[in-house]
Amino acid sequence: MKFRAEIDVMPLKALLDPQGKAVTGSMKNLGLPEIENVRIGKHITLEIEAASKDAANAKVDEACKKLLANQIMEFYEFEIFEN
Amino acid sequence: MKFRAEIDVMPLKALLDPQGKAVTGSMKNLGLPEIENVRIGKHITLEIEAASKDAANAKVDEACKKLLANQIMEFYEFEIFEN
Repeated sequence: MKFRAEIDVMPLKALLDPQGKAVTGSMKNLGLPEIENVRIGKHITLEIEAASKDAANAKVDEACKKLLANQIMEFYEFEIFEN
Repeated sequence: MKFRAEIDVMPLKALLDPQGKAVTGSMKNLGLPEIENVRIGKHITLEIEAASKDAANAKVDEACKKLLANQIMEFYEFEIFEN
């Protein structure tokens, strides 16, 4: 069966996010001072062939740990959808 | 009221995503050949002060158009949550 995964990889909440800080500052200059605490990470979509949703889940978790997220600085969350 | 927005900015489906292609290739080397068609974009979270959910929606849409997404190469989607 074919599944689709939607993965978010974000900087850990305890860490500064300089890119997000810069964007928060730019919001004020653009006339959007209501916007605060911008944090920027990665959104990753992929397709995976697996026997079951649980198997797809395990493979995507492995891919996140091995390649997509740096767990020293980032955390990840994902959802699996049937395609 | 305080709202939280979760924004995804992704490369347009019609465009090549070289970073995603490279990651798809790496999956095979890592023993995950089941994973295909990886696409990589940005995930952005922010907080916004607004009178209503509709007002927050309009502000976040403006922020995406003005700063967060390059609509020539990317599309964006977002959801607003009450904080």
